[in-house]
Amino acid sequence: MDVPPLHAVVMAGGSGTRFWPASRGARPKQFLPIGGGLPLIAATHARLRGLVPDENVLVVTAESQSALVREALPMLPPENVLAEPCARNTAPCVALAALEVERRERSGVQIVLPADHVIEPAESFRASLAAAARYAAGEESLVTFGIRPDRPATGYGYIEAGDQVARADGIPVLAVERFVEKPELARAEEFLASGRFLWNAGIFVWSTSAILAALEEHVPETLAALRAVRSPADLARVYPTLAAEPIDVAVLERARNVRTMPIDYRWSDVGSWAALGELGEADEQGNRLSGAARLVALDARDCIAYAEEGHVVALVGVEDLVVVHAKNATLVVPRARAEEVKRIVERLRNDAPEFL
Amino acid sequence: MDVPPLHAVVMAGGSGTRFWPASRGARPKQFLPIGGGLPLIAATHARLRGLVPDENVLVVTAESQSALVREALPMLPPENVLAEPCARNTAPCVALAALEVERRERSGVQIVLPADHVIEPAESFRASLAAAARYAAGEESLVTFGIRPDRPATGYGYIEAGDQVARADGIPVLAVERFVEKPELARAEEFLASGRFLWNAGIFVWSTSAILAALEEHVPETLAALRAVRSPADLARVYPTLAAEPIDVAVLERARNVRTMPIDYRWSDVGSWAALGELGEADEQGNRLSGAARLVALDARDCIAYAEEGHVVALVGVEDLVVVHAKNATLVVPRARAEEVKRIVERLRNDAPEFL
Repeated sequence: MDVPPLHAVVMAGGSGTRFWPASRGARPKQFLPIGGGLPLIAATHARLRGLVPDENVLVVTAESQSALVREALPMLPPENVLAEPCARNTAPCVALAALEVERRERSGVQIVLPADHVIEPAESFRASLAAAARYAAGEESLVTFGIRPDRPATGYGYIEAGDQVARADGIPVLAVERFVEKPELARAEEFLASGRFLWNAGIFVWSTSAILAALEEHVPETLAALRAVRSPADLARVYPTLAAEPIDVAVLERARNVRTMPIDYRWSDVGSWAALGELGEADEQGNRLSGAARLVALDARDCIAYAEEGHVVALVGVEDLVVVHAKNATLVVPRARAEEVKRIVERLRNDAPEFL
Repeated sequence: MDVPPLHAVVMAGGSGTRFWPASRGARPKQFLPIGGGLPLIAATHARLRGLVPDENVLVVTAESQSALVREALPMLPPENVLAEPCARNTAPCVALAALEVERRERSGVQIVLPADHVIEPAESFRASLAAAARYAAGEESLVTFGIRPDRPATGYGYIEAGDQVARADGIPVLAVERFVEKPELARAEEFLASGRFLWNAGIFVWSTSAILAALEEHVPETLAALRAVRSPADLARVYPTLAAEPIDVAVLERARNVRTMPIDYRWSDVGSWAALGELGEADEQGNRLSGAARLVALDARDCIAYAEEGHVVALVGVEDLVVVHAKNATLVVPRARAEEVKRIVERLRNDAPEFL
C-alpha cells in the first residue's frame, strides 16, 4: 500500500531562555545547530525529505521569526511559512495549519511535529511516519507517537497505553488510556517499571478530515473563528482571542479515536543544555561537542561544549560541565544545574539586557 | 635632594603561551588588559607618569610588536620604541637601551623594568623608584628591587639580602649575598622563614655610567658589538650573534656593586591565569573578573574570569575555575592547573594552528 498524500506541519513557535547564550530573544532554539551541524529546524525538515515534498511542508511560526524560518528553509515556497500574530499555544496552531491544508487539498494525511526536537536515525523516523500515515488514512484516528522511556524522566508528559488495536507495517498501534502530566520521580519510576507508559513526544499523524472533525468537536470556537478569516488583518484581530491551549489538552485528552505508536529510537526534546549529553557522539572521555566548533579536551570528562563554527573550546582537568560560547557571552555550569541558566537570564534582564 | 634626570627602559620583548587564548602569537601578554582596564604595557607607562617624562621612556620590543607598542603608547615619540631584530634575552636588551640613553644624555639614571608586571599602588612604586634613583645616582650602584615574599613561591628567583648598607628616603638599601634560581618548595619555605630572601622582580635602577661600566666588565663583546652599530642593517646583522643571557645572570650575579631595596606593596609578574587570583578586587564569593567584561556569578566561588569589553561571562555553581573567552576561543581550567594551558597550545599547534 502506498503512502497517502502527505503534508507536514512544523510547529516552530518556540521561544525561551533555556539555551542562553546561544539562543537569544530573536533567535530561539530551533535556529541553533544543536546536536549536529544543522539548525534544529533545518534538521527537522531534512528528516522529512523523501517522505513529504517541500511544497507540502508548512511551518507555523511567530511573525517575528518568519524571516529566520525562510532563511533556514530556503527550499520551501515562501507562502508555506504561516505566521501566527501571537503565541496561543499549539491548539490554534494546529487548527490554522489544518485549515490551510484543507484549503489546498481536502484529502490526505498530516504529520504535525515540533521544529526543535532531535530524532535519530532519520530512516527509522521516516518509516514510522509512513506506517502511521497509512494507518491514520484508513482509520480516521489521531495517532500520537509515544517514546519508550529508558529512564524515569520527570520532564516529559506520559501516555498510558492500552491494548494493541492494530499493527502498521509491523509497528503496534495501541489504544490510549490517558495522558499524564509531568510526574514526580517516584511516579515516573512506577511508570517506567510498568512498561505501559510512553513519553508524549508531541508528534502527531492524522488525516486532515480527522483532525478537523476533532477540532470541530472539542474547540469549535477556535475552528469557527479561524475558518472565518479572510485576510491577514482578520487573522491579527482574531488570533489573540483564541483559547491558548496545548493540542494535547484541548483535543487529544478528550477524543475517543486517539492511538499511540511506540517508537524506541533516539528522541529528545532538547529541553536544556544538559540534554546534549544524550545526543551525538562522545569522545573517549565522555565529552560531547555540539554546534560545529572544535573541542580540545585534556583530562576533561563528561563535559558538554557548544560553540559555533570557527570557535574552539579548550577544557583542561574539568568534568561534568556545560561550557557554551555564543556571540558575546560565555556560560559555565555543571550539567546537573544546566536549567539554572534561567537565573542568569533573569539577572541579565535586570542588569544587562544587551546580552539577551 | 632632587631626583636626578631619569630615563625608563621598558622591556617589552615577551612572548609566550601562558595567557592563551587572550594572548596570541601576534599579541602577547603585555598588550592585554589583565588585572585592570589598561593593557599591561600601558599600565606600566602610566605607573611612571610624573616621574619620568615621556620623551625619556624607551621601550625595547620585538620588531613584530613595535607597531602594537606605538599603538598602546601613542604619547611616546616613535623613535623611543627600539626594535630588537630577534629575541636575545635581557642582557643585549639592557645594553641596547643603555647605549641609546648614553647617546642621548650621558648622565642620569635609568629605571629598567618589564612591561608586563602588575604593581600597586603606583604611588608607592614611584616613591621607591625615586628613592632608588637618588641612591643609584650617588653611589654608582646597581639597584635591584626585591619583593618581600608573603608565601613560599617556587615560580620566582630569589635574592639573598645581606647587611644594610644605607637608607634611601627611609627605605633600607641592602647588600646582595647571592641570587638563587627558582627553588623547590621546601627550600622556598626555608627562604620565607629566614626573612633574608626577597623575590627578584627584574626591576632595576642604575646610572647610565654604572650599567655601561658593568656591561663593559662582564659582557664586553655584547657591548662592543652594539657600540659599533651604525644602522638598522648593522643591528640586524649583529643582534643574532650576541650572547642570549638574562641581565641577572650576565651582570648582576657577577658584579660587586649590586644592592637591593626591599619593597612590600603588591607585585606580580602575572605568570599565568592563576596569578589573576592575587590581583584586583574579588566579589563576596571570591570571584575575580579581569579584562573589562561583565561577570554574572550565581553560587560560583573563587573563580577567575577574563574577557574583553562587551562580553559577559556567566558562571553558575562552579568554583576554583579559570574561565577565559577571547576572540574565537574559550578556555576552562581549574585554577590549580592554569599552567597547563601550554598543553592546549601544543595540541593546537599540531591540530589547529589557526587558533594560536
